[in-house]
Amino acid sequence: MTTRKNFGSDNVTPMAPQILAALAAASHDPLHSYGDDPYTKRLGELLNEVFGREVIAYPVTTGTAANALALGTMTPPFGAVLCHETAHIVTDECGAPEFYTGGAKLIGIPGAAGKIRPADITEKVDFAAAMGVHHVVPASVSLTQATEWGTVYTVDELTALSAAAHAKGLTVHMDGARFANAVASLNATPAECTWRAGIDVLSFGATKNGAMAAEAVVFFEPSLAREFESRRKRAGHLWSKMRYLSAQLVAYLEHDLWLGHARHANRLAGLLSRELAALPGACLAAPTEANEVFIGLPDPLIGALEADGFEFYRWPAPPGHEGTVIRLVTSFDMKDEDVAAFIAAARRHAGVTG
Amino acid sequence: MTTRKNFGSDNVTPMAPQILAALAAASHDPLHSYGDDPYTKRLGELLNEVFGREVIAYPVTTGTAANALALGTMTPPFGAVLCHETAHIVTDECGAPEFYTGGAKLIGIPGAAGKIRPADITEKVDFAAAMGVHHVVPASVSLTQATEWGTVYTVDELTALSAAAHAKGLTVHMDGARFANAVASLNATPAECTWRAGIDVLSFGATKNGAMAAEAVVFFEPSLAREFESRRKRAGHLWSKMRYLSAQLVAYLEHDLWLGHARHANRLAGLLSRELAALPGACLAAPTEANEVFIGLPDPLIGALEADGFEFYRWPAPPGHEGTVIRLVTSFDMKDEDVAAFIAAARRHAGVTG
Amino acid sequence: MTTRKNFGSDNVTPMAPQILAALAAASHDPLHSYGDDPYTKRLGELLNEVFGREVIAYPVTTGTAANALALGTMTPPFGAVLCHETAHIVTDECGAPEFYTGGAKLIGIPGAAGKIRPADITEKVDFAAAMGVHHVVPASVSLTQATEWGTVYTVDELTALSAAAHAKGLTVHMDGARFANAVASLNATPAECTWRAGIDVLSFGATKNGAMAAEAVVFFEPSLAREFESRRKRAGHLWSKMRYLSAQLVAYLEHDLWLGHARHANRLAGLLSRELAALPGACLAAPTEANEVFIGLPDPLIGALEADGFEFYRWPAPPGHEGTVIRLVTSFDMKDEDVAAFIAAARRHAGVTG
Amino acid sequence: MTTRKNFGSDNVTPMAPQILAALAAASHDPLHSYGDDPYTKRLGELLNEVFGREVIAYPVTTGTAANALALGTMTPPFGAVLCHETAHIVTDECGAPEFYTGGAKLIGIPGAAGKIRPADITEKVDFAAAMGVHHVVPASVSLTQATEWGTVYTVDELTALSAAAHAKGLTVHMDGARFANAVASLNATPAECTWRAGIDVLSFGATKNGAMAAEAVVFFEPSLAREFESRRKRAGHLWSKMRYLSAQLVAYLEHDLWLGHARHANRLAGLLSRELAALPGACLAAPTEANEVFIGLPDPLIGALEADGFEFYRWPAPPGHEGTVIRLVTSFDMKDEDVAAFIAAARRHAGVTG
Repeated sequence: MTTRKNFGSDNVTPMAPQILAALAAASHDPLHSYGDDPYTKRLGELLNEVFGREVIAYPVTTGTAANALALGTMTPPFGAVLCHETAHIVTDECGAPEFYTGGAKLIGIPGAAGKIRPADITEKVDFAAAMGVHHVVPASVSLTQATEWGTVYTVDELTALSAAAHAKGLTVHMDGARFANAVASLNATPAECTWRAGIDVLSFGATKNGAMAAEAVVFFEPSLAREFESRRKRAGHLWSKMRYLSAQLVAYLEHDLWLGHARHANRLAGLLSRELAALPGACLAAPTEANEVFIGLPDPLIGALEADGFEFYRWPAPPGHEGTVIRLVTSFDMKDEDVAAFIAAARRHAGVTG
Repeated sequence: MTTRKNFGSDNVTPMAPQILAALAAASHDPLHSYGDDPYTKRLGELLNEVFGREVIAYPVTTGTAANALALGTMTPPFGAVLCHETAHIVTDECGAPEFYTGGAKLIGIPGAAGKIRPADITEKVDFAAAMGVHHVVPASVSLTQATEWGTVYTVDELTALSAAAHAKGLTVHMDGARFANAVASLNATPAECTWRAGIDVLSFGATKNGAMAAEAVVFFEPSLAREFESRRKRAGHLWSKMRYLSAQLVAYLEHDLWLGHARHANRLAGLLSRELAALPGACLAAPTEANEVFIGLPDPLIGALEADGFEFYRWPAPPGHEGTVIRLVTSFDMKDEDVAAFIAAARRHAGVTG
Repeated sequence: MTTRKNFGSDNVTPMAPQILAALAAASHDPLHSYGDDPYTKRLGELLNEVFGREVIAYPVTTGTAANALALGTMTPPFGAVLCHETAHIVTDECGAPEFYTGGAKLIGIPGAAGKIRPADITEKVDFAAAMGVHHVVPASVSLTQATEWGTVYTVDELTALSAAAHAKGLTVHMDGARFANAVASLNATPAECTWRAGIDVLSFGATKNGAMAAEAVVFFEPSLAREFESRRKRAGHLWSKMRYLSAQLVAYLEHDLWLGHARHANRLAGLLSRELAALPGACLAAPTEANEVFIGLPDPLIGALEADGFEFYRWPAPPGHEGTVIRLVTSFDMKDEDVAAFIAAARRHAGVTG
Repeated sequence: MTTRKNFGSDNVTPMAPQILAALAAASHDPLHSYGDDPYTKRLGELLNEVFGREVIAYPVTTGTAANALALGTMTPPFGAVLCHETAHIVTDECGAPEFYTGGAKLIGIPGAAGKIRPADITEKVDFAAAMGVHHVVPASVSLTQATEWGTVYTVDELTALSAAAHAKGLTVHMDGARFANAVASLNATPAECTWRAGIDVLSFGATKNGAMAAEAVVFFEPSLAREFESRRKRAGHLWSKMRYLSAQLVAYLEHDLWLGHARHANRLAGLLSRELAALPGACLAAPTEANEVFIGLPDPLIGALEADGFEFYRWPAPPGHEGTVIRLVTSFDMKDEDVAAFIAAARRHAGVTG
């Protein structure tokens, strides 16, 4: 029996069996369309429970849609979104935030381990104010949690960032494509990780962690939600057979499937990280705090692993890091033996024994 | 056993069992994301077969996305789309075409039975030219097939409309949310109904006719397709787990599932139409040529059917039509006895016996 | 000496000598740019006086910019502007409102003499509400004053229209490209014609009535103005040498130059209208209440006037009007003898003597 | 008699007397609007002469409009503009390029003395290609000439940059807000500085160098110009009384007024630069090659000059530069004694004698 060799991304995964079962269970009888159905109602209740308060939430299909629609409600066309310079919204969404905001600007901020700091927010807003009408108006902050470097903002960090944003009148968005991994890593409640820490809007990801194609945009600040329904419809992101989008998320939340998945993936990433970091010439590019490992390895070792058929990405090294960095992503459906096989191959190629 | 009483829309339907089975069959192993998978490859082959030529096709989630993304590639921001004044893109998509084109204008044209005529196209383009730079530039025509009034453009009508559009340098889009019903109704090949008749881009609908959430934007004119992938990604309409979008469409096309579904729904609509039109005071608002019946009925009869629990919409009457018009929609999963029960109830309330 | 034969538009005029003198007077010394200059300050004071209250006003270059920027602040991308179907914003601005709103829809309403009625507003908003998320959200009303048919809304009409709009939560914009002509015609104060009648934002036109290129967007509702400066800058409509835009408007307002110009043009239009309407076969297409005459004339008469070298437009006839309609526009710089010459020629060609 | 103390910007200047005289000369008689006038015709002829070939040119009011409209025709919504990270389009136009392109991204590139290098272009395009559909598509390059640091690209540098852009299929825009200063500095023909060096579209600035409010967008590549007229109208940048926009530019070009102005301003900047650089503790932040001086001076000296009433901006220091940098701008209307007075004051405060 062969082990899985694809460590390229958590989006190469199929959907979890529980999600598939939920689609099957929803496949009967006519139901009112566009969200007037029991699955969507149930989803609302579940999200209220998960976040320990009443929230307003809208399911959409992709993370890009969730982020861009959220930022579109939070940022006027003449505005700016402050975020880390490596944020997915900056680098990987083909200008979706610009499209959905009507042309706002993303202001990318450098920072170690994929994190921005409260002082960055203050400084950018003050600079914009000094520039007056010639400068776009900072209107929102987007934080990626877990970050693009596999690290996790602590609750204290989130709280300080939100406070800096709110002090300047900006609202705070969290890109939670890997929110489950962050929550599992922090060992805090979803409430503590979000609204209690000042987050106004969350892109609650599910696709990478077991769903087929489902995310929820969760509004903790109700006034921001008002126009979301119009924006979603107008973007073609309102499913007529909404039951199938909601049913995925219901199954994802029930019985804490999402957290179980995330804990599993995080554990495997931690294992991978520890074992690889012990190899000669290895150097972690960032601490492994969720389900992604960023590690510098000797080029011959990387080549040998690729030759074995392992799949992963070579990643642009962070400032100050020498040599080639690779990214390894673990996921809910990966087995301990898949990771063990990777580690064994790496040790073998590195000439480590015992 | 109760019969189905919902005649409100074909989007209240669940997915067909074959589509669900296809999702299940695709739910194993890691696969490359974003369309580099065997299901998406197979879909391309199938569409080539169905249309009898090489086409370039992109799956998306909703009909609104399909239409708006297609029109976005066909129409510049300073342009105009010519279409029937009751077209779904005008009335029901919350400005999606405006959003995706960057602010182009939809020019709605009146016309009997939901159809526009070639002379309308010529006239609108000539008027725009006479107005010069002050007028938006007509760039595309969008034809709804089957139309919003349940009628079907003949192949000759389509050919004449496309010729009028092409003569003025406009490209032609077909909104085929109910394309299957139109093809089944025309008893022509998909090629004859589209590119052979001059259609450049087709929104190939599947959701209303058995899929969960899947449409394909089919380009017959390859040069128009070039930018589609960027536009789709940027709109958040590129699924990472694309296999699940493509697998739906593969199952929809295989063994002509789509045409079987459409023939069934069309037959039931024809039955409903004939029987209801025979009632005293009934008057069809448009010929029933696909799976929708638009009929004027006496108000007491409509009220009695509603009181029975039947669901359907009251519709704005077309010019020249007196009284209240209702819309009844049949679908792939509707049974003969569902329709028989509606007819029986209508006859009973109308006092018709025998 | 020849008389002026161009009755085509009031935008064929040069600037008034007083405006030119103001440009010359402002042409000395360095001054702070972007509006931090004494001319812009003086303009603000003058507009407060003219409107009898504190207003927030921004000069821009063209009427299209004024209208589109105003509507952009009043209407979200998923919104709609209600207006007459012949409004300049619908027919002559190449989609500028769509561009500036980010893709909102203009909903054109028919109506005699270029006017819409309060019931139209209520009906369109109620229809949109019934359609729910599928319909764009009516957010603003735009009234053209004087109208596109040379008529003028009375103060009572304006008040009723604004009340209908406000009752539904819409804001009210006035396209005042010919605002001076309307005020002169109504013999009311600028305040009575605008904010006292419920107008929230006014495009205060000056270009057609004597300026070189200057309009002011006047906000009576301060909260709407907040973002205007960012939108204007971002559109490239903030002059660095703002003094020259403001100086035009200062000269336009000082000594009631604007009203004097408008009274003159209105008087000439009235004269033209009365004399032409008395010709055999003549029929006014709308009452002449400002500086435009819309009149149906026998084709041979029209042809003879054109052959004489007179310039004017043939206009699409309003519903119910037979024959060819022409538009004649008078302006601040037109002389009595220019009009007399036109009338004399028309009488001569019509065979009228005495 | 006092000398002029405002060195803040060249946009604080009034218009030149020749420009004012041109406005006066154009102020008579009705003329056809929207550019069908002799001044606009004459402008076309003059630009052909100046550039030594047939060009297609459109006057607009502001530099922001010129740049953003040009980039809008060159860059699709899903595209990217490559430019220096300090480019005016990035820092000072409140997102105008994003607005006019429909949401394209500006990719700011660092580089000494305000210049980018050909390798930057190649690298950014290759990176985008490697990222595939997730990355915006580089479509155009914008070069600022003179640069934002008062330097001037040589003809060879321009040629190499254009070649790198064209090799990758990108078009090249030149932001020539200070184009006259650059041409005067290079001692080359306008043709050599633009289309012969591969520039496709030029924002030909006049406002800072003597006009009231006028720039021309000059297309050397005719196919790019096709849609410009629609875009300009739709943006509200088409003057009805176009004569007044064109007449400014005609006067600006006739008798080489533009080059005379620029040579004068450049000479004064050179003088200022040489004398200030000789002061103790002074350090030029970039070579002075046009009409702007960027120089680091001791803080007490800067403070003393401000206390004297001189106006100028403190500027963000470039990488590697210690201490406070100020910007001094000279202009066509500045006198030798104005500059001499500044130098004298600086020398006095610096304790330099003789």
